[in-house]
Order: sequence, then C-alpha cells, then structure tokens
Amino acid sequence: MQHDERYMRLALEIAKTGIGQTSPNPAVGAVVVKNGEIVGFGAHLKAGEPHAEVHAIRMAGDKAKGATVYVTLEPCSHFGKTPPCADLLVEIGVQRVVIATTDPNPLVAGKGIEKLRQAGIDVTVGVLKEEADELNRVFFHYITTKTPFVTMKFASSLDGKIATKTGESKWITSEEARQDVHHYRVCHDAILVGVDTVIADNPSLTVRLPEGGKNPIRIILDTHLRTPLDAKVIQDGEAETWIVVGSEVSSERIARYTRPNVRILSMPTPTIEIRELLNMLAAHKITSIFVEGGAKVHDSFIRAGAVQEIIAYFAPKIIGGREAKTPVGGIGFAHMTDVLELTIKRVETIGQDIKIIAAPKR
Amino acid sequence: MQHDERYMRLALEIAKTGIGQTSPNPAVGAVVVKNGEIVGFGAHLKAGEPHAEVHAIRMAGDKAKGATVYVTLEPCSHFGKTPPCADLLVEIGVQRVVIATTDPNPLVAGKGIEKLRQAGIDVTVGVLKEEADELNRVFFHYITTKTPFVTMKFASSLDGKIATKTGESKWITSEEARQDVHHYRVCHDAILVGVDTVIADNPSLTVRLPEGGKNPIRIILDTHLRTPLDAKVIQDGEAETWIVVGSEVSSERIARYTRPNVRILSMPTPTIEIRELLNMLAAHKITSIFVEGGAKVHDSFIRAGAVQEIIAYFAPKIIGGREAKTPVGGIGFAHMTDVLELTIKRVETIGQDIKIIAAPKR
Repeated sequence: MQHDERYMRLALEIAKTGIGQTSPNPAVGAVVVKNGEIVGFGAHLKAGEPHAEVHAIRMAGDKAKGATVYVTLEPCSHFGKTPPCADLLVEIGVQRVVIATTDPNPLVAGKGIEKLRQAGIDVTVGVLKEEADELNRVFFHYITTKTPFVTMKFASSLDGKIATKTGESKWITSEEARQDVHHYRVCHDAILVGVDTVIADNPSLTVRLPEGGKNPIRIILDTHLRTPLDAKVIQDGEAETWIVVGSEVSSERIARYTRPNVRILSMPTPTIEIRELLNMLAAHKITSIFVEGGAKVHDSFIRAGAVQEIIAYFAPKIIGGREAKTPVGGIGFAHMTDVLELTIKRVETIGQDIKIIAAPKR
Repeated sequence: MQHDERYMRLALEIAKTGIGQTSPNPAVGAVVVKNGEIVGFGAHLKAGEPHAEVHAIRMAGDKAKGATVYVTLEPCSHFGKTPPCADLLVEIGVQRVVIATTDPNPLVAGKGIEKLRQAGIDVTVGVLKEEADELNRVFFHYITTKTPFVTMKFASSLDGKIATKTGESKWITSEEARQDVHHYRVCHDAILVGVDTVIADNPSLTVRLPEGGKNPIRIILDTHLRTPLDAKVIQDGEAETWIVVGSEVSSERIARYTRPNVRILSMPTPTIEIRELLNMLAAHKITSIFVEGGAKVHDSFIRAGAVQEIIAYFAPKIIGGREAKTPVGGIGFAHMTDVLELTIKRVETIGQDIKIIAAPKR
C-alpha cells in the first residue's frame, strides 16, 4: 500500500541517523502511526542503548495501543543488552507491525515475526526491503558471513594513476573529495593500509571532520614489521593502531613496538592471507574495514574476493606514464574472463572530481 | 530577451543536424520569425551546398522581408563556394538579425555584422554565444589555430587498465559503449592510432552504425613502417589509410605499400613530432582527429598539449596488476605541478559503463 511505503520511507530516513555509530548493531528506525497520524518515532543510536521501537513506543505513550508500527528491521525476539522488542510490542497491544526486512541474525531470523503473529498482531513484511537491506549491508554481511564488510577506496587521475612516476601523489583529488573520505572513515570500525603507504606518506589515518567523530582502529598490514617507530600511527596516540605481521617476525622485534595504543597481531603464516586476516579481525569484533591502499594491498583484497564496496574518486587530470602506479597493482587478473565484475551503484560530482560507488556483482 | 533565446535555441537544435557532415565548414542553423511566427528555418548540411540562412530565407519566401533572422553564426561576407549571406539578408530586406557568435574565420570576423549594420539592419550579437561556440568548437579551433581539433578516446576498467597484464582487452566496455564510439568516428575527419594497436588488434577502424555514415581517413603513426601488409587497414579498401612514417624509412620499403587507398606521409624528422604532424595534417585539410590509442600515442599527444577533448569510458570492472597497461602510458608527467588539468564537461551512463567527457583547462 502506498501509505505503508510512505511511513517506511520515513522510518528509513530516521534509521540513517544511527549509521556509523551503532556497531556492532544495525541502524534501525521505527514510526508509530494511529488514525493516520504519526504519534511516535525513534532510532537505535548506540549499542547497549534502547532499540528504535522502544524510543518510538515511549514517544507514542498511551497512543501506542492499537497503533501500527513501521520498523525497518524485524523486531528482536531475544534478550541481548535490552529486552526483546517483539515482547514489548505485544505487551503494549499494537494492532499492526510493518517490517521492511527480516533480521539475518540467527538469534532472531523470523522468530520476532512469529512471536508477533502468535499474539494476533497483523504483520506485513517486505515493504521497501531493498532499501532496508542496503542500509544495513555492513551489519547483514558481518552477521551472515562472520567476516568484516570491506570498503575499498582509491583516488586516481582520469587515466588511472594514483601518483606520478616519481611517486608524487599530493594532491590528486580536490579538498572536497578528501573531506568526503573522512565521512567514510568515521563509519567504519577500522581503516586498513599497507606498510608501504605508512612509509611513503606517514598518514595519521584519523577522522578530521568539522563536526568531530570517533577515530576507527588503524590497521597496518606489515608482514616483516617495517613500520617506522616514529610514524604518526605509532606516535600520535590519536587512535588504536593494530599492526598485522607474519609469523616469522621475532618477539624481540615486536617488543620494540610496545606502546599503550599499539597492538601487534601475528598471523599463523609467514605471509598475510587476507581470508585468514578477516576471520581474525571479525573475532576481534571488527565488523567493517575501510581499505585505503596501496596498490598491492588493493590487489590482495580484490583477488581474495574480499571487497564488498568500492569508492573510486576520479580527478580531472591526466598524469600519464607507463611507470606511474595505478589503484590496483600487484598481480592482477591475467584474463578478461576472470576480472572482477562490478555494478555501479551511484555516480556523483564532488568538488571538481567524480565519485563512483560500485559493488561486486553477486 | 527571452524570446530571442527561445528562437536561438531552436536555431542551435537545427544547426546540430549538420554536425559531422559540414567539414571543413561549421554547422549553422537559422530561423526566420515574423510577427511572432516562425516562417522559415534551415541548416547548412554540406560544404558547397547552401548556407543555413539561404535555406531559411527560401522557406520564408515573401515573408522574409521585414522579418527577424536568428542565426547561430555570423553570416558570411565573402564569396566562397556560395555568395555572401550578409548580402542576401540586406537584399531581401530583413529588419533584424540576431547572431549567437561571431565567425573567427579571418575572411568574416565581424565583416558580416558590419555589412548588415551599414545597411541599417538592427543586429544583436551574443545570444547563447557559449552554446554556439561549443557547437562549433572543432571548426573554431581549426580556423583559429590552423591545426586539427583532437579528441582522445580511451576505455578502461575502474582501476585504470586498458588490458590485462597478458594483453587481453576484448572487451572491457559494453556493446553500448563500443557503439557510442562509432558516433564519434563518423564526425571526425580522421581516426588515428599507433602501429602497435594495428599489430595487436588488427582493427578495421571503420564506422559501423545501423544508419551508416562516412568512414573517416585512417591515420597510422608508424615511425619505422611496421604496419603488416595483410592488416585490415591496408587490405579492406573500406576507407583511405594514411601511414605516417619517420624520415629514415627507405623508399623501397614505402614502395611495398602501394595501393589505391594507402598513402605514406613521410615526416621530415626520424621520429614523429606531434606538433609537426598536426601542421601537416591541417595542410591536408584534416580539421578533426579522433585518437584511439594506444597508451604511448596518447602520452605523446597529451605531452604535446595537442588534445582538445577527452572521451573516457569506465567499465565496472577491476582488472588489477602492476604490469597491466593504462590509457596514457609512455613517459608521462613527473610532477603533480605539471600534470594536465581538465574540466569535466559531462558524465553519462552508457549501457553498464560510465562515460566522462573532459577538456583541458584553458
């Protein structure tokens, strides 16, 4: 029904207020409607705090009884840090619940809907499902695959160069595009780069937004532990830094990196296997990673089939040169039949640059 | 005035009917308006045939007297293949002439406007000037610089590769994008590629559009005359092929290429200097060139500052690989301060690909 979509769209907009701050929980929005009037709404804003339905029901007060509740994700049915929302909706006596998408979390996965139906509540599922799935793609990916959602970012000239042949890369894209990157950093649990990027650019990898925002964990892939001890990521104490090393790095060497904000993660193998790495990071509750280079690291992630989204910025420049680096270097694919096929999700103009958001074809 | 813009926009639309078929003349449109009614319109469709004003005045017949004529380019004042249009407008007794932009051709360059004003006709200049200049950018460039307008085209993966590391490049972009390329071919006087492209791909470099269209001249940059004698561009007779060679290629070698449709152009120097080449091609009445690769040829044109427009297609694919070729290879620019800065003119979706049209910043 048309008005179902209208209220669900509102619930989705409200859900977006929590994006990037609810991890490891999904962002959820809820709207309570009675007699064609909105009587309450809410969003889940932080793990451990009330769920969207709770806020919305509270706002509705007495009017919640007999109302319709629009919620972007199936209400939970289990006791987590808060009591189950499905129980609350039954208890309050709502008449109808409209749900955008089911919760893939095996602890819920249809049980919330079942509980509501058993209590005689009229339940509609699937209104704006696609938008709701997109909204929580990070959470859904993490919960279903048990590995972090990986977003890869690169910025190149129109002819696909990330630096000149002499290695100059400051600045390819405009200030606006570089600012935009910080919005992505803030909504990922971790930022990941290769040690060569640390050595070449000495980046701080922190979030610098006028409105502030938490710094993600900085992860450095550094097989032989070559991160300079005077690098910003070691020295500045602005965020946690996790250095991932191969199994052959000595404990003496590791000991030199002892700092309150630095942690060394040793892989069980001499080289860093991306799949293994993702399993390990998931075990450390990392649900999302923003991979920011360099070219070899990108190649490793691409060939491991470990990328869920690509953010590509193109600057209106031609750099040229057979020797200049490109966004995805390393080994690459040998045959056109093997290359990674993508779907373009969005194209935007940002400052003087073009931003293309793409995802691997399913 | 608003209605001036409205009629001029119509004249510009009409002018577009001639695009790609009027060379070496500009595409021009004209609309005749009397008492708020359109009484005639016309376009220049082919060199040697009547100009836009002549068609429009003919259509208007007796109503042209006392009318307003909207024309996208200053009426000519000289005897070319046809008599001067300015004289015609005076003779017919039009009341007012509205002109989008002046003709940079030194044979006209304001003289047409002068002639009209001297005859007491009310003349307005500059209505939608920018659009008119854009429409005839090829002609204006040729007439003012005396070198061909160069459009460079490339198609790459999102990570800036034009082939896999093993050289596979069929097909990076979709059928729709490849079809789009033929629309560009048809409106250029010549297509230009390097001999390596001929050796690697054996392309026919002809126009294959459902509606047909003339084949441009095929120009091969081939310093040492290595074009295979069995290449399509030599054998198929579908279009003229001009092979540009360095000064050290022997006349015996050149003699082997004697064919009705093949012409060898010898440069005065052992290597092919792009600036010199463009002067030579302009002398041969080539007003526009569509440069289609490969990477080294693109680099030569870019570093020579000889490119006026870039058409870049991006396929939603990641190819990867440090060894894979990029759209602009060769020497390139060493420093960020030297790279070619562009302005994005348009971004389009074409099939599953993205097309970006850009031009060097002035």
